[in-house]
Amino acid sequence: MKVLLVGAHGVIGSAVARELGARHTLVRAGRSQGDVKVDITDSASIRRMFEQVGRVDAVVSAAGNVHFAPLEDMTEQHFDIGLRDKLMGQVNLAMIGRAWLNDGGSITVTGGILAEQPIRNGSSASLVNSALEGFVRGAAIELPRGLRINLVSPNVVQESLPQLAPFFRGFEAVPAARVALGYSRSVEGHQTGQIYRVF
Amino acid sequence: MKVLLVGAHGVIGSAVARELGARHTLVRAGRSQGDVKVDITDSASIRRMFEQVGRVDAVVSAAGNVHFAPLEDMTEQHFDIGLRDKLMGQVNLAMIGRAWLNDGGSITVTGGILAEQPIRNGSSASLVNSALEGFVRGAAIELPRGLRINLVSPNVVQESLPQLAPFFRGFEAVPAARVALGYSRSVEGHQTGQIYRVF
Ligand SMILES: NC(=O)c1ccc[n+]([C@@H]2O[C@H](COP(=O)([O-])OP(=O)(O)OC[C@H]3O[C@@H](n4cnc5c(N)ncnc54)[C@H](OP(=O)(O)O)[C@@H]3O)[C@@H](O)[C@H]2O)c1
Ligand SMILES: NC(=O)c1ccc[n+]([C@@H]2O[C@H](COP(=O)([O-])OP(=O)(O)OC[C@H]3O[C@@H](n4cnc5c(N)ncnc54)[C@H](OP(=O)(O)O)[C@@H]3O)[C@@H](O)[C@H]2O)c1
Repeated sequence: MKVLLVGAHGVIGSAVARELGARHTLVRAGRSQGDVKVDITDSASIRRMFEQVGRVDAVVSAAGNVHFAPLEDMTEQHFDIGLRDKLMGQVNLAMIGRAWLNDGGSITVTGGILAEQPIRNGSSASLVNSALEGFVRGAAIELPRGLRINLVSPNVVQESLPQLAPFFRGFEAVPAARVALGYSRSVEGHQTGQIYRVF
Repeated sequence: MKVLLVGAHGVIGSAVARELGARHTLVRAGRSQGDVKVDITDSASIRRMFEQVGRVDAVVSAAGNVHFAPLEDMTEQHFDIGLRDKLMGQVNLAMIGRAWLNDGGSITVTGGILAEQPIRNGSSASLVNSALEGFVRGAAIELPRGLRINLVSPNVVQESLPQLAPFFRGFEAVPAARVALGYSRSVEGHQTGQIYRVF
């Protein structure tokens, strides 16, 4: 399969690249590095990426930012970051990517455990991750040509603990290599509308 | 209790007004009618409403629009309608309303069954309703002063079937009066971070 992997050089994306790269042809995309550059917050940039990459069998996203802050300090603009970036960045990637997918191809986006299990400072992350799950459930039943869409919802990743540990006390961190299996399930399996929890 | 009810003249809002109005002092708000006018898509309008209404014991929202269309026809702008209106309209109502709530007061927002059970044309509704559930879970653990926040997730409402029946075949419609009990649970109960499903 030809797999477009957005966020290929990130903590999770690198592990996905190792897992899927063993069996498939990867096109690595990222904001600052990769075979192709893209900023998913900008639809025009997503369109340019697909024009460069051409048709694919799978679009995988392991990218997206949200603003973490105490609820007390969260403004409308802070919520907007997550809406524009992790949420609509991935929704637009899916919506634009559809046309470039071969029949039976798949879209895989990334959410996270905060959809279900909140932490302090995480109101925007909980909102965005849940929104992505809803979008995946909704879009799955309307995609044509056997196209599929799923979401991987990782727990906090072991490799990210140096930065994230204080926010995720008591969460059982998972190795990025285990998270990568969720993307394999989505791309190489045959289900759609699924939330692959790696908790 | 003094309860601010946004969307008080809608199908669900009227039923909530009947249920809560029997025991509490209601301030009815709406875009085109009510004791006070508000457009929840505009934070400045929300702020003006609270300046007029003053302190309250509960903020209840039964308002918010999303765009329904086949996934194929959905554009970024169509998704934006739901993000600005039903999602961020209610998030901003909660975020601004906090400061006007007495200790132990509650916020209740409205989602819907499409968060969990998708229909054709409903990708934006599934996204937005799920996002609201995530926001409620996230915000609940950070609200100060015993403030609470919950969501009511109604099935399709019997009184709306004249317009909605073709989209909800096979769904077991619920009377608006039964949906109103969800708002009573939220306002008059003592839980927080809950999704009250009226399915
Ligand atoms: N790490 C965790 O513990 C964890 C747990 C649950 C969920 N997640 C989610 O998983 C996703 C990836 O997390 P991560 O920890 O692997 O992040 P990361 O190490 O920061 O990597 C993110 C990657 O995505 C790229 N990227 C970021 N914004 C982009 C944009 N607007 N357009 C295109 N590419 C963009 C980055 O490229 P540049 O560096 O060039 O900007 C980078 O390669 C995020 O959505 C995160 O919320 C992470
Ligand atoms: N009816 C159902 O079967 C059903 C099922 C599940 C979920 N829901 C959700 O429940 C909520 C209410 O539904 P409904 O059927 O009762 O709707 P409705 O009959 O159309 O009533 C909506 C009410 O909210 C007000 N409103 C709309 N947009 C507003 C805005 N931007 N600012 C302030 N007020 C606004 C309207 O006022 P004006 O008329 O003056 O604009 C109206 O009073 C919606 O979020 C809907 O998605 C409905």
